[in-house]
Amino acid sequence: MHRMNQETLNIETSGRGTYDISSEIQSIVNKSSIKAGLCNLFLQHTSASLIFCENADSTVRVDLENFMANIAPDGAPIYQHDMEGPDDMPAHIRTILTQNSLTIPIINGRCALGTWQGIYLWEHRTSGHNRSIIITLQG
Amino acid sequence: MHRMNQETLNIETSGRGTYDISSEIQSIVNKSSIKAGLCNLFLQHTSASLIFCENADSTVRVDLENFMANIAPDGAPIYQHDMEGPDDMPAHIRTILTQNSLTIPIINGRCALGTWQGIYLWEHRTSGHNRSIIITLQG
Amino acid sequence: MHRMNQETLNIETSGRGTYDISSEIQSIVNKSSIKAGLCNLFLQHTSASLIFCENADSTVRVDLENFMANIAPDGAPIYQHDMEGPDDMPAHIRTILTQNSLTIPIINGRCALGTWQGIYLWEHRTSGHNRSIIITLQG
Repeated sequence: MHRMNQETLNIETSGRGTYDISSEIQSIVNKSSIKAGLCNLFLQHTSASLIFCENADSTVRVDLENFMANIAPDGAPIYQHDMEGPDDMPAHIRTILTQNSLTIPIINGRCALGTWQGIYLWEHRTSGHNRSIIITLQG
Repeated sequence: MHRMNQETLNIETSGRGTYDISSEIQSIVNKSSIKAGLCNLFLQHTSASLIFCENADSTVRVDLENFMANIAPDGAPIYQHDMEGPDDMPAHIRTILTQNSLTIPIINGRCALGTWQGIYLWEHRTSGHNRSIIITLQG
Repeated sequence: MHRMNQETLNIETSGRGTYDISSEIQSIVNKSSIKAGLCNLFLQHTSASLIFCENADSTVRVDLENFMANIAPDGAPIYQHDMEGPDDMPAHIRTILTQNSLTIPIINGRCALGTWQGIYLWEHRTSGHNRSIIITLQG
């Protein structure tokens, strides 16, 4: 193993919801021409996260939103931290319950995702944000 | 650092529950003869996950099941996604709350787990499934 | 990519709460003189975890504690596993809901955290413990 590439991917979100970034990540792997190795994604934020999720039926992601809204409701009186509004603290909770760093194997030049797996950026703030993901490829 | 090995481990589950895969993973590390490095496990599914968990008292894993059943109950009327039955959406929720990719250091040819740590595949569907884990070793 | 360093960081906690370890990790990166690569942190315990969290307003971490106390209360009658007291099983639940292994890119000799990201050890037991983190640097 002799190669390492790093680059940054910026994603402009339009507010709370999941954004499929699988093809953007695969494009970066293609460009590197690494055929076997690992791909690490690191999201530099505390109010958005990265998940692997079912990529066929979009109601899965609707249900995930509703699940999170249930266990970490916006504006709950229990929160002390609400400087940036009722969605501020729930965004931090949703982030620590999911991930900010994902590592994916590369096999035959492809992110070796399962048939039903997609890579999603999950924006937890209600307003849109510019989110940075550092991609480190090893091969 | 000059070596990288990749292989796939298939685990046949018999339905919902935790399966200790620590010794299977250690066997793969042994075979590689890598003495110092990293081991990444990547589970290619969206309704099962990987966790590090206490390996001594099995009631820990019973309690984890009950915890998940409480916060993401099967067949809850809130779910829109139920194509594959009442355990379909809860399986996706349990997956995003845990992990699909784990990285473990290798020291002296061993996965450097703590004394009480085991590596578990957690099947979230009530019926058995064939689950694939890609193991990438770097040393 | 030709280098790999491993070492262990021990943190003595004084009981439940979050401990900022960002500067300890950066010191280890500095000492290695790796300028570009990856840093993996692996916590060898099942009743403490690692998170990336907002590092500016400490009420975020107070709210995270309260959130966890709400969904996994100490001494809940549902738990079978309580050998080490009412905080024993909740500590395992909090651990599986967060992480034990984090991978962070290194860019220009720095852990490439976002502006508001800190790396925290989260002690989930009410009493103090000695916690071991294995740090693997690749560059």
